[in-house]
Order: sequence, then C-alpha cells, then structure tokens
Amino acid sequence: MNFQISRDKFYNALTIASRAISSNSPVPALTGILITASDNELLLTASNAVISIQMTLSNEKDPDLGLSISGEGSIVIESRFLMDIVKKIDSDQIKIEIIDGTLTHFEGNKAEYKINCIRPEDYPSIDFSEPSTKFEINSGTLNEFITQTVFAAAVKETRPVLTGVNFNSDGKEIVCTGTDSYRLSRRTAPIASDPFMITVPSKTLNEVKNIFAEDQTVKVALNDKKIQFSNDKVMLQSTLLEGDFPDTNRLIPNDFTRTMLINRTVLLDALDRAAFIKTDNISTMNLQMTGADDISLSNRSQEIGEFHEVLNAVSYEGDPLDISFSGQYMMDALRIFKGENVKISFTGVMKPFIITEEDDSSVIELILPVRTYM
Amino acid sequence: MNFQISRDKFYNALTIASRAISSNSPVPALTGILITASDNELLLTASNAVISIQMTLSNEKDPDLGLSISGEGSIVIESRFLMDIVKKIDSDQIKIEIIDGTLTHFEGNKAEYKINCIRPEDYPSIDFSEPSTKFEINSGTLNEFITQTVFAAAVKETRPVLTGVNFNSDGKEIVCTGTDSYRLSRRTAPIASDPFMITVPSKTLNEVKNIFAEDQTVKVALNDKKIQFSNDKVMLQSTLLEGDFPDTNRLIPNDFTRTMLINRTVLLDALDRAAFIKTDNISTMNLQMTGADDISLSNRSQEIGEFHEVLNAVSYEGDPLDISFSGQYMMDALRIFKGENVKISFTGVMKPFIITEEDDSSVIELILPVRTYM
Repeated sequence: MNFQISRDKFYNALTIASRAISSNSPVPALTGILITASDNELLLTASNAVISIQMTLSNEKDPDLGLSISGEGSIVIESRFLMDIVKKIDSDQIKIEIIDGTLTHFEGNKAEYKINCIRPEDYPSIDFSEPSTKFEINSGTLNEFITQTVFAAAVKETRPVLTGVNFNSDGKEIVCTGTDSYRLSRRTAPIASDPFMITVPSKTLNEVKNIFAEDQTVKVALNDKKIQFSNDKVMLQSTLLEGDFPDTNRLIPNDFTRTMLINRTVLLDALDRAAFIKTDNISTMNLQMTGADDISLSNRSQEIGEFHEVLNAVSYEGDPLDISFSGQYMMDALRIFKGENVKISFTGVMKPFIITEEDDSSVIELILPVRTYM
Repeated sequence: MNFQISRDKFYNALTIASRAISSNSPVPALTGILITASDNELLLTASNAVISIQMTLSNEKDPDLGLSISGEGSIVIESRFLMDIVKKIDSDQIKIEIIDGTLTHFEGNKAEYKINCIRPEDYPSIDFSEPSTKFEINSGTLNEFITQTVFAAAVKETRPVLTGVNFNSDGKEIVCTGTDSYRLSRRTAPIASDPFMITVPSKTLNEVKNIFAEDQTVKVALNDKKIQFSNDKVMLQSTLLEGDFPDTNRLIPNDFTRTMLINRTVLLDALDRAAFIKTDNISTMNLQMTGADDISLSNRSQEIGEFHEVLNAVSYEGDPLDISFSGQYMMDALRIFKGENVKISFTGVMKPFIITEEDDSSVIELILPVRTYM
C-alpha cells in the first residue's frame, strides 16, 4: 500500500470515521481504522461492534482530495496515532506507505514516522450489505427527529429496548418514540416507505446527528437486524436493539379536562430558578392552577428550603388543578419546542399530561405526574 | 440582616469569592459564603482553610452597586445555592432578609425563596490581620511570574514544599522558582522590599491569576506564615508551604560548552508532532546536533514506532552533542517564552541545560537530561 493525499481532507475524513471508535475496545484491531487503497479510491472502515462507519474517498467525489495511489493494499492504523500524525505533519500532502510487514512510513516535508500497525487480517469482517427497506430523509428533519426523542429514552439499562428510539412506519408516516417509562417524546412525520418497526440505540442516533449535520439527503436502509444511514461519501451502520418496544399509543390521552396555554420561556425560566431545590436529588415541582392569572409554581425540600413564583398563562380552561411532576422532565420537554407558547393538556391529578405546540401536534411530550405530600 | 443589591454586581462578587470554596469541605460552614451586612457595606468571606477570600462591597467603592442595607447582621449561605439564586432571579435588584433564625428570604420580582442557611457562629474565625513585609506589583507582572513558574512545580505530594513556587527577595529583587527536581523555572524581577523567603502553594497562585486579571496594582503583604494579595475590593489570603525549599542556585550552570539559537515555534511544532510516541507514558526526545544545518530530532518507542525530523537552527556553537530529555518538559519550557528564538545552552550529555530568551535571562528554564539506550 502506497498513496498520498491532502492532509486537511484526510484529517476531516478521519475525524468522521473515528466517531465509531471506542478507545477501550476489547478487540485490539477495533481501536484502529482499516485503510484499504484500491485502484482509484481509499476506503476507511471504523467500528465499535455496534456502530460501523465506512467512508469512500476518491478524486471523482472530491476534486480537492489530491489522492494518488501508487500501490494497492490495506492496513489497520491505531486511530489516535493516525489522527495525531495527520493533524500535525509538516506538509499539505501526506505520503503513507507500508514498508515492511505492518511497519508503515508516514512522510511530510522534513518530518517522518515509522509506525507499527495492525494486520488487516486481524480486523473483524463487517457485513455492509444493504438491507431492503429504504427511504430518504433530509438531514435537518432527521436531526430534529433525533433531538426531539433521544433525550426521553432511558439511560439505565434495566430495560435495554428503552435505551433507544423506536421508529415505526405504517407505510405512510413514521412515528419516532423515546420513553424511559416515566415520560415520553413522540415525533410524527409523513414519510412513505414499506412498513417497519425497529428500535435504534440512542448512541447511534447521536452519532448520526454529528455526521450528517448539514442540509443534505440521507439514505436510510433497514431490516430487523440493522440500519444504515448514508450519503455518497459516508455510511453509518448500526445494530438494532432487541426486544419488544412497549405499545405507547394507549398511554397518550385524547380527551382533556383542563388546557393551559403558556409562554414557553416564562415557564422554563421559572422551573430553572427552582431546579436546585431537590429532595433525594430530584426536584419535584408543583403547579396550582385556578385561572390564567393565577398559576402558582412552587418547590420545596425539607433540607434546602422552598421556592414560589406566580405565573401568568395566556389562557387556562377547566376546573382548578393541583399537580406535581419532575422539574427536569418538564424542562427537557419545553426545551425541544421552538414556538413562543406551549399547550399543556391535563386529564387529572395523577393522570399523564401532554405538551404540544399551540397548533401542531406532530411533536407530543408526555409526562407522568408524581404523588407528593407537601 | 436585610439588604438589597444589584443582581449583576452581587453575582460578579460571588463568582470571585466562591473561588475559595471547596464543595467537599469537611467543615460544613466552609461550603458557604459568610455575608456580613454592617452600616454601609457588605462583607463576603469564603475559605477552604488554605485560601481565604474577603470582599468589601459598598456604594462608595462601586457607584452602580445599588446597595441598600436596612438591617445589619450576618449569615452563612451555601455557595452553590446562593449563586444559582442570584444568577437566575427575575429582577435587576435582589432583596435578601433573615426572617427566622437561619431561614433567609430571597425576593426578586415574582420569584421568591426561603432557604435554610447556616449560623454565622458556626463559621471558623479567620485572622485577616495584615503581615508586615509588603510590596506592590502590577497584576500583569504578577501573572507573568505565576505563569512562568507554576507549571514547573511538582504535582506529586512526595515533597510538599515543591508543590509551590518559592519567592525569595534579597531586598532589591525577587526571584520566583518552581521545580519538581527534574526541571526548574526561574523568573527574576527588580522589586524592592524587606528580604524574605517563602513558598506559596501553586493552587493559591492560580487563583491569584484568576482574580487579579486586569492591569492593576496588587498589594502583597506577607510573613513566614501567610501571604495576602489585595486591591481595595478583594483580598486573597493564603497559608504558606512549610519546609525548606532546595537551594537551586547551585544547580544552574554558568559556563557552557555548546550554545544553540533556534526558532522557538519550529522546535515546539516538531516536539509536538512526536509527542504521542511514548514508552511507559513518557516521550523521550533525542537531539543530535552537529551544526546549525544539521540538528536532528528523533523519538522512538519499541511498541509504537519512531519519529525523525531534521531541523535548521539559527546558529550552533561548540562540538557535536547527542542529548535526550523529556519532550513534555521541553514543550512546557518553550511555551512560556514569547520571542521568535530561544537560546539553549549545554554543558554536557548528562548535565542540566538551560533555555533563555536570546538576549534576556530574566527567565531561566533548566531541564535535566535523561539517559537512554537508543
């Protein structure tokens, strides 16, 4: 293997590929990036067993790449060493050549390295074949899906399937749901495809957001084992979470006895002011609502003390209500909206309530109240 | 105690005072800030037993403070709660009043808190009396002293006195020295005072740098137990490190057999390129010098591989020399200089060498070479 390539372009590609690397992988070869130089393109492969990334670099796809391959072959190079060398070498082009077995030569202007690398035979074989269920989505929409649902997924591994976001298609629209069983976040969008029902790990989705950042079309392909997100240069493939995702449809109420329309920032700021008052590390907020001009937010802890603030809502319809909930959950939910006001719809003191935009229910946040003895 | 004050001004003062707080102090009261309201000023005290900070807030010293005291008294308020309240409360002025024992009321516009605080009697008594040896120094110069010496002090507590910087005055000039016994950094400046010899903890000096950041005159007062840094609003007091600081004068050679003048950034960049090649987590660099145009920097590890780069020096005088040293120490030393070139003066393969500016030895860096078997 012997090639040279633009230092900047190569470094940018490595930055993306290395997102799949776990520095403490039990498989030594997986701490490295597999580089394969063929006739006219360079293939980079990185994986942590759950997430795998494959990048294709060619002058055809990127005219500024300056790729020149004078010898085919492949090698696995420790990711952190490779990135350090490419970042710091003293020239705009870097030359990389296998000189003896796995000993690889890196050459800049006056600086040169000889680094012990890993045999490509030691790199696990990864099946990048394309699954049959496919759709396309704008990266902006995809990233919104992710931002609006991942935060509500479980962090604890007690029920592994809840540590991911469920993607469910009836053929006409895709419903994304994240829940830790105390709160739920759901985003719906009209995207046609074959019907499917899968759960994608949150970690995968966070990497997808980092990789497909700009406004571009992302191709998605999936089956019941894996999902691929790709454009013409990079493909991120991930295993799926096993297990049945709970049927969350029946949790979301449709009829409400009270509805409050309130300025999102006003409520968020008040919750934030009170957030440090915690009992057993949880900040439980209490809302007493009697009318639009009489919304009282309070929070109390035996140890620390208490907070109280009177808020004005835009409107309040229904009987008075006194309800308590996790302040953190409410703040998380409010932060994913963008509009000036949010609509909070209640059915009763101990019944889940939902938060939506004023005139749009493509995003639904659901929170379970908590019982308090204040 | 009952007063109101500008939220922004109060928050800025708390940010400074809280630098002395250790969140996990074994003395509960020391996790708080002691606020004392007297006739026309507010006194803030914070301490972690080593470093203590006292701030005086009055309308006389700051016309925009908006301080209005309607009841004298004092209270200790948990630092992180106090800062959170003052940062987030919904008004430009904040009112603080003790309402019952240690229960303290914080009032903004619509938001209000009642917080359980700590009795001022539980706060340790701190002696802020002024020591007799005094001098004044510009904060810019003081911060240079600190930046140029603290990095060379020991991190390990094996010899506690080496975890600080030694300040030594013969009456005419002050010599600041930091050393971990493998390298040394010394800054000398002509500042008159009574003679003294003290060692100030590195942590103290780092806080001094944060607090007296702008161009101002800092008053320094010290004796053999403590040191105070102050302006008219804030005083930082610190205990000193006990134990005899080594006599480092005899370590610094005066006669040299070889001298190299080299571009600082060129050498620094080359060292940085090679820094990831480590054996037992230490990157040992080797310099082979035969003439100004033949300076060879290399670095090798059995496990990782090797690096090599040929550098051009501005000048090299003396016989050829082959010397090895810690790359990290050399990079640390080079980074504190500002000029284009540095002068590196050697006496022999296993003798300490020194680095200075080209025409100025007010800052001297000394590094002990290491033996290698490359």
